[in-house]
Amino acid sequence: MKIYDISMEIHPDMPVYKDLESKKPTFKNVANFKDNSHYETDVTMNVHSGTHVDFNLHMVESGSTSSDAKIEQYISEARVFDLSYVLESITKENLTNLAIRKGDFVIFKTRNSQDEGFNPNFVFVAESAAKYLAEIGIKGVGIDALGIERSQAGHPTHKALMEKQIIILEGLRLAHIRSGSYTLIALPLKLRGLDASPVRAILLGN
Amino acid sequence: MKIYDISMEIHPDMPVYKDLESKKPTFKNVANFKDNSHYETDVTMNVHSGTHVDFNLHMVESGSTSSDAKIEQYISEARVFDLSYVLESITKENLTNLAIRKGDFVIFKTRNSQDEGFNPNFVFVAESAAKYLAEIGIKGVGIDALGIERSQAGHPTHKALMEKQIIILEGLRLAHIRSGSYTLIALPLKLRGLDASPVRAILLGN
Repeated sequence: MKIYDISMEIHPDMPVYKDLESKKPTFKNVANFKDNSHYETDVTMNVHSGTHVDFNLHMVESGSTSSDAKIEQYISEARVFDLSYVLESITKENLTNLAIRKGDFVIFKTRNSQDEGFNPNFVFVAESAAKYLAEIGIKGVGIDALGIERSQAGHPTHKALMEKQIIILEGLRLAHIRSGSYTLIALPLKLRGLDASPVRAILLGN
Repeated sequence: MKIYDISMEIHPDMPVYKDLESKKPTFKNVANFKDNSHYETDVTMNVHSGTHVDFNLHMVESGSTSSDAKIEQYISEARVFDLSYVLESITKENLTNLAIRKGDFVIFKTRNSQDEGFNPNFVFVAESAAKYLAEIGIKGVGIDALGIERSQAGHPTHKALMEKQIIILEGLRLAHIRSGSYTLIALPLKLRGLDASPVRAILLGN
């Protein structure tokens, strides 16, 4: 059994959504060996930085939060599909032949995993695909983009998934991952009442 | 197989080391449904908040950091020992009968798991115990205190463990955990070059 790290590195110059300076993490040294006998850092980061899970509150007023997350759902069998051929967005048509089943945790590998920085034209999950996945009743969906959608007014992809309590895992790094079945571990931090959590996401497989 | 959450909840009023205000996390709302069509939060936290792993840089100048962490070491068989009878510190004498073996990941459950807030007299791992564990060559040690030591000039417990690259996992919540063998998952975030990382720590067991 091998362990594949599918997480983004978190640092002050990491790629962030739309490359906004306000979304870059900051690391502040608060104790060091000049002034103290130990070393400590404060981190400030938007909870949607890097590899993270969204909770419904991100898009739904009074929606469920990190406090409602059921930890056992974040250790799951998961299936990685290579959709590197998709250029713009993953649509229902791209999914209907994939034999996705109720309860699956699906992970979409796209050409995004080749990007070094933030690509404003990242491949996303279109509304038609989200509605299809919600109808099937999947458990979760992961993608190698900082957002599971872009350029869709009203955030219909997030909302279609969130209505069915489908886990949304964003910011994966999948260039080194082949299609197939794995065990996914992506445990959210035990943050009280928030709209997202950074995670260390890994796949266990052969 | 059951999943036991052994993590502290992270929130602005959580217990922190010495109850210092400067160590309390802050949650800053940066987008909400009054002004935006979504909701987002920035979190500021000391990386030693709540349940976390220490890296050598915390106590050793130019020591190894989160970037050097080998992810596979944070998924491990682990043995929980109930040392609730210890009142002050865990010493070598408390450990010699426990049949601790090379390569073990040991977790010490103490009376700290009964504390609601920060207890300045928390039970810690004394230097004699740390040296004993380092001699055996364990893989890691976890404890239900925000620090694995206190009141020891020069931090000899941390240093004895760090010299042997032994993982230090602090801030566990173990009141609901029985002695025995489990699988521990406590993956650090993929932070670049830091002295610690918050983790969501769980035990898998019967």
